[in-house]
Amino acid sequence: MVTDIELKAEEFSGAPGEDRLYRMRHSAAHIMAQAVTEMLPGSKLAIGPPIEYGFYYDFLLPRPLTPEDLPAIEARMREVVAADVPFEESRAPKDEARRIFADQPFKLELIDSFEGEDVGLTRHDTFLDLCRGRHLDRSGEVGAFKLMSIAGAYWRGDERRPQLTRIYGALFSTQEELDAHLAHLEEARARDHRRLGRELGLFFLIDDIGPGLPVFTPKGEMVRHLMESFVRETQTKLGFQHVWTGNVVREGLFHKSGHYDNYRDVMFPPMVDEDAVYRLKPMNCPSHMTLYKEMGVHSYRELPLRFCEFATLYRYEASGAVGGLTRVRSLTQDDCHIFCTPDQIEEEFTRCLNMVREVLSAFGMTDYRLQLSLKGSEGKYVQDEEKWDAATRALVAALDANGVQYEAVEGEAAFYGPKADLMAKDALGREWQLSTIQIDLIQPARLGVEYIGEDGQTHTPVLIHRAVMGATERFLGVMIEHYGGAFPLWLAPVQAVVIPIADRHNDYAARVQETLQEAGLRIEVDRRTERMNAKIRDAQIQKVPYMLVVGDREAEAGAAAVRLRSGEDLKAMPLGEIIERMRDEVARKA
Amino acid sequence: MVTDIELKAEEFSGAPGEDRLYRMRHSAAHIMAQAVTEMLPGSKLAIGPPIEYGFYYDFLLPRPLTPEDLPAIEARMREVVAADVPFEESRAPKDEARRIFADQPFKLELIDSFEGEDVGLTRHDTFLDLCRGRHLDRSGEVGAFKLMSIAGAYWRGDERRPQLTRIYGALFSTQEELDAHLAHLEEARARDHRRLGRELGLFFLIDDIGPGLPVFTPKGEMVRHLMESFVRETQTKLGFQHVWTGNVVREGLFHKSGHYDNYRDVMFPPMVDEDAVYRLKPMNCPSHMTLYKEMGVHSYRELPLRFCEFATLYRYEASGAVGGLTRVRSLTQDDCHIFCTPDQIEEEFTRCLNMVREVLSAFGMTDYRLQLSLKGSEGKYVQDEEKWDAATRALVAALDANGVQYEAVEGEAAFYGPKADLMAKDALGREWQLSTIQIDLIQPARLGVEYIGEDGQTHTPVLIHRAVMGATERFLGVMIEHYGGAFPLWLAPVQAVVIPIADRHNDYAARVQETLQEAGLRIEVDRRTERMNAKIRDAQIQKVPYMLVVGDREAEAGAAAVRLRSGEDLKAMPLGEIIERMRDEVARKA
Repeated sequence: MVTDIELKAEEFSGAPGEDRLYRMRHSAAHIMAQAVTEMLPGSKLAIGPPIEYGFYYDFLLPRPLTPEDLPAIEARMREVVAADVPFEESRAPKDEARRIFADQPFKLELIDSFEGEDVGLTRHDTFLDLCRGRHLDRSGEVGAFKLMSIAGAYWRGDERRPQLTRIYGALFSTQEELDAHLAHLEEARARDHRRLGRELGLFFLIDDIGPGLPVFTPKGEMVRHLMESFVRETQTKLGFQHVWTGNVVREGLFHKSGHYDNYRDVMFPPMVDEDAVYRLKPMNCPSHMTLYKEMGVHSYRELPLRFCEFATLYRYEASGAVGGLTRVRSLTQDDCHIFCTPDQIEEEFTRCLNMVREVLSAFGMTDYRLQLSLKGSEGKYVQDEEKWDAATRALVAALDANGVQYEAVEGEAAFYGPKADLMAKDALGREWQLSTIQIDLIQPARLGVEYIGEDGQTHTPVLIHRAVMGATERFLGVMIEHYGGAFPLWLAPVQAVVIPIADRHNDYAARVQETLQEAGLRIEVDRRTERMNAKIRDAQIQKVPYMLVVGDREAEAGAAAVRLRSGEDLKAMPLGEIIERMRDEVARKA
Repeated sequence: MVTDIELKAEEFSGAPGEDRLYRMRHSAAHIMAQAVTEMLPGSKLAIGPPIEYGFYYDFLLPRPLTPEDLPAIEARMREVVAADVPFEESRAPKDEARRIFADQPFKLELIDSFEGEDVGLTRHDTFLDLCRGRHLDRSGEVGAFKLMSIAGAYWRGDERRPQLTRIYGALFSTQEELDAHLAHLEEARARDHRRLGRELGLFFLIDDIGPGLPVFTPKGEMVRHLMESFVRETQTKLGFQHVWTGNVVREGLFHKSGHYDNYRDVMFPPMVDEDAVYRLKPMNCPSHMTLYKEMGVHSYRELPLRFCEFATLYRYEASGAVGGLTRVRSLTQDDCHIFCTPDQIEEEFTRCLNMVREVLSAFGMTDYRLQLSLKGSEGKYVQDEEKWDAATRALVAALDANGVQYEAVEGEAAFYGPKADLMAKDALGREWQLSTIQIDLIQPARLGVEYIGEDGQTHTPVLIHRAVMGATERFLGVMIEHYGGAFPLWLAPVQAVVIPIADRHNDYAARVQETLQEAGLRIEVDRRTERMNAKIRDAQIQKVPYMLVVGDREAEAGAAAVRLRSGEDLKAMPLGEIIERMRDEVARKA
């Protein structure tokens, strides 16, 4: 799951085809460390690995670093590159290494932590580093790079140790690739949903409300309502039903279901009364299973039962880890639990796949891949080979029957059953894990969920967990970036702004608004005393799809001069034609 | 607010016109007390007032009473009535009264609590009671009565004292009135939403979830969704906007807003983390005001802003006080906060009135009265005579302009401003307080909510709180009883059941279902192997509006034989005609 467009701190694997890129980035990290220690003598060196997009190095510095320091470091790096010095790898006994790095406490810790008698060293120019190797032959081969940013980091992630300074660099084989990456970053920054959310007035994160608990303005609420309504309609059309189980339950339910042991850490703190403890729901499954049971004895003839709910769930993510809409504590899942017989898995999985494809394609997310996560040979999985085999066969059969490409990964299943995760690419080519379909072979038995089979005996149904958007908040965050804030007409909170040329056209503007609103469209009038061009510019900044300019001629003709967000000028059109055009565009989700 | 159809324990006022009824009921209570003390010597007498519908008396009895005891008590009462004995009222010094009631501890407590030197006594037949009077002349005039039920009660409501036994009786002037009352009770019992909710499979209250936290089945969710969608559509049409502020906020927000001091007792217990305390929201006002502020500096040109939200709120009512849908801990308010200038109060109040009338009339609640609650001369009210006068004038002007009848009650306003409450009668003539419109002259200032006026100065807007259904859960409870579970077509969770005559008609039944579903109707097929008549009977018990019976002839003709819930037989109709008829009925909310 890609949750951020920042450079990733995960170590870059440098798979076979990418070995050269690995060596470039790794070597550049050493060259940067040389430049920093020359500029700030007494710097203590931590580690400096290659990563996706580039490299970083962590330092304990004698003074704080600012972005203004980066050009000097980069300039010194380019000198070392130009000098085309060799990288020389060697090994040394630990005792010798301890003497070499006597004033480098982090290196000493590393030496102690390594197994074996000796350690790797890499030297280039004047700089010697403790290093397991894989470098370029010479510094001149280092490729196109740019120092990007400064961040705080902790030695081995330990927050009790002093904070280190991390410098990030981007590096690619060619200048073209680097430029493309920087342009991509710029585009992503321009689309950042946190920035656009504020500029378009969609949502706010407010201290008084709490971290990770976004609140939505009328415009933001309209977009989330339209998204949820569309999913609800699609669910209804495909035979799903909706239930309502609220936000709070007795904590005992999670003890029964086993979620307390596994998910306690992501639950909000308990609400403790003298004789009762309540919890905000972090998931719906136990509530849906409890409702299923309370509805009475179920016959196989009633199955499958498909319970959907747009309940807002609450997960107590660390307050430092939340931000924007993609990392929240309140998440409104488009959750569904299907109770079915083992025979029905294939058909129900197909239904879920169709649901996912129909919804994502409406949002223009048509480039996706599916990962089928299967049982591994190791032990965390619930032990019932027969059920696993049957469920896996059903999923594979459904995927094949529907002609869906997928990648099967063994050992990635949930402990309770196999699952399919859908990774979709947005307009920037970034991949997001959105939808999930999971087969659950264990929870229903744990909560005593049953049905009477055709044989008159009691059986445990299979439970399928399914989410399409995942969570409304996160999906909206992704969509804001996907569309760059320019929502298609069906999703736009304001579909058209009526712009009266002068005050005397305000009455006609109001009539235009009323006429279009009666046709089910969302219309505002810009009555400010600004000039027309300023109003058009502001509507474009607000990414309103249609601008309807009205003056004397338009009022006389019962028309409006139509301009599109794209800049296209459609000239004067009768209101009836405007309505027809807009309604058609909405219906096609164009 | 009438929350229950049980006999009310509130004392019956016996207004002038009802003085005779008061005397009848009061006298009957004495006669019942005589019968009980004769049957169970040693009984200790508490109090026995006349109440709405009848009377009761509380006793501390030497043995538990069962419903089987009531006929004997009633028989003895009828003997005393037949004997037509006189009631004689007198007064006695307290000391003498203490001697008379020496073995009646509750009477002794009462004597001590009375002011003055002497107390009232009433004697009839062999029975003497401490009593302030207003009785019949003779027992023969007592009217038509019936002992109804036995309940537990506490002396002066004090739960630490031993529990008393309360016997309820119903009493009216004539047998016809008593019979009508008993029939009414029977009807109310048949419509009890708790019973119907279970029989129709709409909602459940489940121990594992928690008291006062109902969960809704697919059928129940559908009804609440239809209700809320209709209100939302109406709101949008009338110029209201919707926001989303979730279920949880930092407790500090309620300290700021002042709600913590006044409403702490109805809040769920806090969620306490090391460095943060969260609360479930018991109301939306502080969140809506916080959002208003965060949206930036507001100009008078933007006002009124009307923020609506269907947020589920949580109120920690005593677990013994919750039950069914009308007394819940989770309540989904159709809440709205209008931010406006003082000049806009009249227009906005009119808008709210129109909203209320449009929504309630769609639910067939057309018989209602409006109570205008005004400031009293006493002191709890916020001190700003000018604002109070202006707000009150605006409300009265709006009511007059709209020709709305109302009753003005001084001293009933909220501390923050005047309000209008709407009391509507259901199909049984019971009155429910549903909608409320409240002017708030104080909260916006407390939270620093502002706008820039036409004068360029900063002003505090008026806040109007408004709810139409009140809360979805409670309104649904009222609607279940109002309709007796037989929802009109637009609200019916299942609008038609297709009944195949034999298994060979199942395919055609599925086609009928599909055709009608594509027309936007909610259709089920009864595929059980039951006989046709049993299926029709079950559909009627489930109060499904349309039954569509299909056999060979219907399949051939592309038709269905239509029966209504009422029993009416419309014979075979082509599917197109059925769709047209049903859609028209839905559109008219008939």
